[in-house]
Amino acid sequence: MSDKIITPKTLSGFVEMLPNEQILFNKMKDTIRQSYELFGFVPLDCPVMDSSQVILAKAGGETEKQIYQLTKGDTDYCLKFDNTVPLAKYVAQKGEQLCFPYRAYQIAKVYRGERPQKGRYREFYQCDIDIVGRDTLDIFYDAEIPSIIYYTFDKLNIGKFTINISNRKLLNGLFEYLNLNEKSGEILRIIDKLDKIGIKNVKDTLAVDYKLNDKTIKIIVDFIEINGNNDKQISKIKALNIDNETFNAGLEELQTVINQIKAFGVPDECVAINLSITRGQDYYTGTIYETYLDSCKEIGSVCSGGRYDNLAKFYSAKNYPGVGISIGLTRLFFQLLENNIINLEQQSPIDVMILPMTENIDYANTVAKNLRRDNIRTILSADTTKLKNKLNYANKMNVPFVIFVGESEIETNTVTVKNMVSGEQVTTEINNCKNIIKKYLEI
Amino acid sequence: MSDKIITPKTLSGFVEMLPNEQILFNKMKDTIRQSYELFGFVPLDCPVMDSSQVILAKAGGETEKQIYQLTKGDTDYCLKFDNTVPLAKYVAQKGEQLCFPYRAYQIAKVYRGERPQKGRYREFYQCDIDIVGRDTLDIFYDAEIPSIIYYTFDKLNIGKFTINISNRKLLNGLFEYLNLNEKSGEILRIIDKLDKIGIKNVKDTLAVDYKLNDKTIKIIVDFIEINGNNDKQISKIKALNIDNETFNAGLEELQTVINQIKAFGVPDECVAINLSITRGQDYYTGTIYETYLDSCKEIGSVCSGGRYDNLAKFYSAKNYPGVGISIGLTRLFFQLLENNIINLEQQSPIDVMILPMTENIDYANTVAKNLRRDNIRTILSADTTKLKNKLNYANKMNVPFVIFVGESEIETNTVTVKNMVSGEQVTTEINNCKNIIKKYLEI
Repeated sequence: MSDKIITPKTLSGFVEMLPNEQILFNKMKDTIRQSYELFGFVPLDCPVMDSSQVILAKAGGETEKQIYQLTKGDTDYCLKFDNTVPLAKYVAQKGEQLCFPYRAYQIAKVYRGERPQKGRYREFYQCDIDIVGRDTLDIFYDAEIPSIIYYTFDKLNIGKFTINISNRKLLNGLFEYLNLNEKSGEILRIIDKLDKIGIKNVKDTLAVDYKLNDKTIKIIVDFIEINGNNDKQISKIKALNIDNETFNAGLEELQTVINQIKAFGVPDECVAINLSITRGQDYYTGTIYETYLDSCKEIGSVCSGGRYDNLAKFYSAKNYPGVGISIGLTRLFFQLLENNIINLEQQSPIDVMILPMTENIDYANTVAKNLRRDNIRTILSADTTKLKNKLNYANKMNVPFVIFVGESEIETNTVTVKNMVSGEQVTTEINNCKNIIKKYLEI
Repeated sequence: MSDKIITPKTLSGFVEMLPNEQILFNKMKDTIRQSYELFGFVPLDCPVMDSSQVILAKAGGETEKQIYQLTKGDTDYCLKFDNTVPLAKYVAQKGEQLCFPYRAYQIAKVYRGERPQKGRYREFYQCDIDIVGRDTLDIFYDAEIPSIIYYTFDKLNIGKFTINISNRKLLNGLFEYLNLNEKSGEILRIIDKLDKIGIKNVKDTLAVDYKLNDKTIKIIVDFIEINGNNDKQISKIKALNIDNETFNAGLEELQTVINQIKAFGVPDECVAINLSITRGQDYYTGTIYETYLDSCKEIGSVCSGGRYDNLAKFYSAKNYPGVGISIGLTRLFFQLLENNIINLEQQSPIDVMILPMTENIDYANTVAKNLRRDNIRTILSADTTKLKNKLNYANKMNVPFVIFVGESEIETNTVTVKNMVSGEQVTTEINNCKNIIKKYLEI
């Protein structure tokens, strides 16, 4: 042991929040969790690490470079870089003990050793739900997912949002139809960049880098630029008369999903077919989702996902189709702060601070217990600190209520409660005091 | 990418729970969190990793061997092995932006690469609270901590428990008095093993390994074996008339804490002075706590902690005294299961499953929304699965209520609700149905 002091700092790409940030962050995390639970999802809490063999089974390219790897004893570990790989392993391993459709939610930190830059984190929360079937999973669930996105973002109360929907079979089918199968991965990647690079650059890249002819480029571009309300877009897609099985399967699925979403009561203006979304290189095979905040589309999709044919193919010979989404909460949180959509004012971990004015704290403690029974977060400030300093503390911590308990309150079985914001002060009996506080806190 | 299937398994020392386990585990975790929050603690969520320099500043011996270490880029990381080191660094770094006393709670996974054995985990939850002062921290807080332990374990509802209390200054002072300062660390370690090895072995070890004479051993053993109710023990300690400053400071602190705990309304039978507890080699300097379940003491302390003079000495020249405790939840959970103190029956993530009997699900969906508004966890089972299979699913998942919505319910604006446990079934209007469900769920 040495007495040298190590200057503490936060590691690049990691987050250490101040109390008011953490409280607000946790509120959002709780809202998401409550929403997922209300839709009957089961919590799943996978280890932070798994064997490298498991984690790297699917990885490759950029992802693999970003993975944190370590060896201890005779085990080679990787930290999880998403929640999907651990879910896939879990389903493959525990499949016989689960009920299907298995509805799982995960709210967990994941790890990516990216080059640190604004909006990129090396440790961040992903909030996932997945509905996994055995052998089959009804298209109905592709429509349920947007209804859960809608409920969740409505509860988060961060402004208007639009759930963009497409189906991977449409573009895949179109590429088959255009005999572009071999280049489909690369073309999808280019289209995925549309928002960033603009339509002209997409066209140029397809022409120069991928040697597509003008006619082919026009068909692709006309397709991804189809617009109008959802019914109109469906009509336009139909009118293309693309003679390809995959394409038409995608069209039918899309139509079914859009209709079912309506039945789920999601307002029309919150759902938009967007044929230019592709979910990049991911393993999606059908319906795909991206969610944008109307007031700041530039921050990108805040909730994405889709349908996959076979979740656990690296870990099981059985077939587990599924559909899921993920909210990248850490990134979203800081973007909302930066865009003043949420703000840190008035975040307090304490609802009431009780200040006993007598040496004997029995009565004050009874009051504290009584308040906590109604879920009022209460501290009993009975240390020897000066009253002035205690009130300073209450102010700094944004504590909304202070309760004074002195001889006269003890005698009359009352409390003196002060609203620290309005300055209003009243001596009243405890149940009435509780009502004042609960009304203010809206609990 | 290869198509070879990797057989999934859970890594030794890591935990992957089945849904009913996870739901019960999370309930306990939520109870602890709610208790900590009701006492005004602020959430703190430190990164899983920090620089090796920070994590290893305090470590040494066994702990250091157990640490998971990794390098990526130019950073040498360690996974946290407890919540205290990250807290210490955080306080040292953010001290100027915090209000003191800083009341923090952390419910987080920590990592220790121990040799796997029964009851030992490599990844496990620790649920910590700490109250940290700047320069000073009133002894009052040493008494508040047991009142929070009491509240928390009472809410956990896992049977009777006893909070054992001592003060490190007592044994330290006694060793000074006996001129055993140099051997004090080793002797504390022997005493710490009392429960495991018994009093005869403690005596023998002190005589043979540490060459203590019979008289000295008798004084130590008589001291740690002091018993009786708390008042009696205080009298017996006083009667020893040990002429040592440290010892008498410890006695005074212990007396103050025991009296204050009473004022906090913690029942006498839940608090016991126990002079043989030492908290091993830890950095505690005053009051120490260990909590035992009366019905299974053999599982050891389920909530331990104490007072430390200087939390952040490795990271700051400033002085941050504190007091805190930790619940090792993962270990506790599995011990409670094994001892049948908790059980997994009837854990369901779903309160109600709605079965629409018509193609149009508008009305069924309205019912689902209505139930969720009252925090009833509801799934709308509108896929094309056969009714029989849906009811099987409800049974397997322990769903307590199924609601049928057919033509006649839609016409009469009612629902048919079936209690899956009693088999009772009734057709009634939706608000009445909600009351039936809420009464059953006690929400």
